[in-house]
Amino acid sequence: MSEQIDIAIIGTGPAGVSAAVTAAARNKSIMLFGTEEMSAKAAKAHSINNYPGFYGKSGADLCGAFKAHLDSMGIQINEEHISNVYSMGKYFSLIAGQKQYDAKTVIIATGVNFGKPYPGEEEYLGKGVSYCATCDGMLYRGAPTAVIAETPAEEKETAFLAGICSKVYYVPLYKEVPEFSENKDKIEIINSRPLKITCTQQEERLVLENGFVDISCVFILRDAVSPAVLLPGIKMNGTSIEVDRAMRTNIAGCFAAGDITGAPYQYAKAVGEGNVAALSAVDYLSHLQ
Amino acid sequence: MSEQIDIAIIGTGPAGVSAAVTAAARNKSIMLFGTEEMSAKAAKAHSINNYPGFYGKSGADLCGAFKAHLDSMGIQINEEHISNVYSMGKYFSLIAGQKQYDAKTVIIATGVNFGKPYPGEEEYLGKGVSYCATCDGMLYRGAPTAVIAETPAEEKETAFLAGICSKVYYVPLYKEVPEFSENKDKIEIINSRPLKITCTQQEERLVLENGFVDISCVFILRDAVSPAVLLPGIKMNGTSIEVDRAMRTNIAGCFAAGDITGAPYQYAKAVGEGNVAALSAVDYLSHLQ
Repeated sequence: MSEQIDIAIIGTGPAGVSAAVTAAARNKSIMLFGTEEMSAKAAKAHSINNYPGFYGKSGADLCGAFKAHLDSMGIQINEEHISNVYSMGKYFSLIAGQKQYDAKTVIIATGVNFGKPYPGEEEYLGKGVSYCATCDGMLYRGAPTAVIAETPAEEKETAFLAGICSKVYYVPLYKEVPEFSENKDKIEIINSRPLKITCTQQEERLVLENGFVDISCVFILRDAVSPAVLLPGIKMNGTSIEVDRAMRTNIAGCFAAGDITGAPYQYAKAVGEGNVAALSAVDYLSHLQ
Repeated sequence: MSEQIDIAIIGTGPAGVSAAVTAAARNKSIMLFGTEEMSAKAAKAHSINNYPGFYGKSGADLCGAFKAHLDSMGIQINEEHISNVYSMGKYFSLIAGQKQYDAKTVIIATGVNFGKPYPGEEEYLGKGVSYCATCDGMLYRGAPTAVIAETPAEEKETAFLAGICSKVYYVPLYKEVPEFSENKDKIEIINSRPLKITCTQQEERLVLENGFVDISCVFILRDAVSPAVLLPGIKMNGTSIEVDRAMRTNIAGCFAAGDITGAPYQYAKAVGEGNVAALSAVDYLSHLQ
């Protein structure tokens, strides 16, 4: 068995960074998953005036100070995308493409959860619903598939899929006009809003506002994944993860911090919660056999 | 009626500062009670490494950055000592010596509560128990009194009392040997641990480990006042104020943040809670008639 990380932290916004620096200060082995950009939302903020000690700084300034703090403590960011976390009883398995990381505790700090999963999405996940074309595309060789894409970045994934599948129905959720340079004859763009995913006999069915398509798999490609999908069994409160004052979720060893636990969506609140989540994880580790 | 403050914040540690900058950013009228030294505990910290953005800074550096932040926003510190807060239904009255401030909401951020009140302390407060020799000394002219003192700073108050009262029993809770330059013939030092305050006929009785003294009033002089004494009716959880995730206490319009709400005793946690408490107060104000 590979060595288990003490604390895996998912997210590099203020909550994730705060959790990381506190966990590292307590000499725990950590892995911090996220982007070197830290927090796309914060980086865009014009001015954040109520994070004590940093009056009149921009979001980019704060991100820079946070990155410098990580660097000073030798904390690296792992940019692999964690698609799933599975509770294995006494530890957690984190899935990043074909890779797997094992951790004794997990802190979810993935930021605001922008929407609910589509009806049927969770039910058919792994059985006709996938979040990763690279991972699962080959399973649908010669079959019709659909892609729901949140950003133009998914066009590349879709062209790759079209090279494998018999047909790809492409449902863009963004304003820009999709442009495909490869396999464009096998891609049909559908400008409609997805409503739900159902199953009819052996086929999946993607129901849209203006009709439906029957396919073998629908690839839902988006930046943010619902926590309920990321970590099956996690208890939600609306679109937020339910936590207590120690930032514990309903799953032992799993903590959450920052915007993902609900309003207010604030730097200071997220930093405080990351700190508490890390210390609760440290406490949990001290009671593990 | 004097104009009511929107949000009164008691305490100038990280939680109080965070609440103040957030409340001010939301254009609320605030009054911040505390000391220009900000936080005696934090100022003594050698190094605080897990407040994101401030790696390797001392407690004094952080206090300086926090003070600069207050200054940048034009937030002043009122150094008067708030001894009591009374809930008046739709507002609160804050008592500072002979002065009174009215506020629509209150945020308690007074830091760690170091101990429980003595048995009888709350029962006889104002009826033979006082926290302020300057305020109440004249009421006990020619009568015997006692002083329980946490720090040598109270010796001056005691000498003042001895000039009024027939006798002062002085119970120092500190290691240094008390030294009185004035009225020393009327001061009797008792080196014993106070156990409780009771009432016998018309007199107060201070019961100590090695005996008791009958007096007209016992002055309990300490830095930190128990929240239960500060704000009668507040619900405690052990020695901490009980709060929910929105930092609400059991009293509508009263919020708490920082060490006073319990462990972990951390800068980041306190800052986060101050932020949330301020936004909860802002929300509460928006629903007031």
